[in-house]
Amino acid sequence: VQNPNDIKISFKHQHRVQFYETDMMGIVHHGNYLLFFEEARVGWAHAQGLLDYQKPESASHFAVLETWVKHMKPAFFGDELEIAVQAKLEGVRLTFEYKMHCPKRQDQLIAVGRTSHASLSKELQVMRPTPEMRQLFKEIADRNVWIETWLSNL
Amino acid sequence: VQNPNDIKISFKHQHRVQFYETDMMGIVHHGNYLLFFEEARVGWAHAQGLLDYQKPESASHFAVLETWVKHMKPAFFGDELEIAVQAKLEGVRLTFEYKMHCPKRQDQLIAVGRTSHASLSKELQVMRPTPEMRQLFKEIADRNVWIETWLSNL
Amino acid sequence: VQNPNDIKISFKHQHRVQFYETDMMGIVHHGNYLLFFEEARVGWAHAQGLLDYQKPESASHFAVLETWVKHMKPAFFGDELEIAVQAKLEGVRLTFEYKMHCPKRQDQLIAVGRTSHASLSKELQVMRPTPEMRQLFKEIADRNVWIETWLSNL
Amino acid sequence: VQNPNDIKISFKHQHRVQFYETDMMGIVHHGNYLLFFEEARVGWAHAQGLLDYQKPESASHFAVLETWVKHMKPAFFGDELEIAVQAKLEGVRLTFEYKMHCPKRQDQLIAVGRTSHASLSKELQVMRPTPEMRQLFKEIADRNVWIETWLSNL
Repeated sequence: VQNPNDIKISFKHQHRVQFYETDMMGIVHHGNYLLFFEEARVGWAHAQGLLDYQKPESASHFAVLETWVKHMKPAFFGDELEIAVQAKLEGVRLTFEYKMHCPKRQDQLIAVGRTSHASLSKELQVMRPTPEMRQLFKEIADRNVWIETWLSNL
Repeated sequence: VQNPNDIKISFKHQHRVQFYETDMMGIVHHGNYLLFFEEARVGWAHAQGLLDYQKPESASHFAVLETWVKHMKPAFFGDELEIAVQAKLEGVRLTFEYKMHCPKRQDQLIAVGRTSHASLSKELQVMRPTPEMRQLFKEIADRNVWIETWLSNL
Repeated sequence: VQNPNDIKISFKHQHRVQFYETDMMGIVHHGNYLLFFEEARVGWAHAQGLLDYQKPESASHFAVLETWVKHMKPAFFGDELEIAVQAKLEGVRLTFEYKMHCPKRQDQLIAVGRTSHASLSKELQVMRPTPEMRQLFKEIADRNVWIETWLSNL
Repeated sequence: VQNPNDIKISFKHQHRVQFYETDMMGIVHHGNYLLFFEEARVGWAHAQGLLDYQKPESASHFAVLETWVKHMKPAFFGDELEIAVQAKLEGVRLTFEYKMHCPKRQDQLIAVGRTSHASLSKELQVMRPTPEMRQLFKEIADRNVWIETWLSNL
């Protein structure tokens, strides 16, 4: 049964599992999930106008503070995975949540995760988001609902 | 100027460069090119009906014998790369050639490469292709021209 | 100041940061930390007699259920990192905790993490550890103290 | 039988194969070999005094022009691989050759390879090596013999 919360999450990233992402267990190696989440996060930022592929240095200004991944089912070579994303900015901390499904296998839930990030100065120190970024996130928050319970009861 | 040979190569794989594929030089790390070529090779095999994502073990039956990559220009985070592929089967050896362009940067040639492969038994011994595979490749060769000079004069 | 708890943890894995582990921020890409933790976990299992490199399939029988990484400081190309490990078995769940330091930079704490795992059957179903594994872990627990508060107050 | 040429090559890098380097064929994925060669190349440069881990940016000044890998035997999880390296500088081109053995399996030859590199300016243009680098390589060449036939007849 689909979580009614999922209906409100509009951004979805697709990832086709590659042979080089498998390991000798015959499944996707767990180390790749953070890479898939990064793809989804970058795709989301690009869709929101936060990231300009012509000015890639903008993506370099965010550090990863913390990551969490929970694995429900294995993923396999050739799987076309779908990753839904939600994001919020609180103080200096930018938080992303992820839900990864496999549509071809009865929309099975493969994994969920959360990553948090902060702006970095060139000296690699955490710094407060600029007013421009804060304004941008306010507009994003107006367009996108953050669902506190999205990853609950899984 | 486009190589007139390129006109005959119909299969093209797209790859969006990810942040995790860059290194501290700010460009795509060279180790990723063989992964991009694998994506293109798998995509080609799937398009030709050689590979069934529902029976992924079929992809496991091929070993890599040799790889060669020549780098012309660096690739960058966010680049949408295009990889053209041609393939031929000679004796036990399956050879692929690749040309990687960046359409957004005046179709710049980023890299070319060649990889060769052989069927493996379950005991990881090189073996002759089965008559079925040989027949399949004969049909593929009828649909796809191999251009001996495709990677010459670069 | 060193955490007095650290004195009791005897197993340490070394990892020299490679160029291919950096990204365009000039630091180790966060996706690599789970790989470093895997190296440390495998090294620990080997040191405890749980893993025989001559029978590598034994390592395939464990699935990753959950991972968590907290990043304190960036790591750089050439860093010789040191990863301390502790482990416990509770019910079907095998839990590992990790602390990663950089001895050459005043023993700076780079990251901490936790991963949990379960035995898998050949059909990739979670199963109870065998009596042999349970016995082995009882002996391991006798030799190694699990410190509940090891990752607290960081 | 050992190649008598091998006796003159003194630099050897060790690499323990990790679980995350395997693929669903149960062997080391071919994409990792260029990473192992990079480890060996960096280790060699460090041993020769060409690379200072405290000034890691020095390693960023070299671009990869071309790579070639030939695979003889698969490598497996847990293998302790040994990679011998030789290097020469000719004009703007720095060439490395590699031989990878598995000492525990009767010193089986796993793979050989060649990579070539050039100095890059900050604008990522190939440039002539500085007189200092040229002098350094002259001294290195005095200490290390380049064996033209090292990878022949394999």
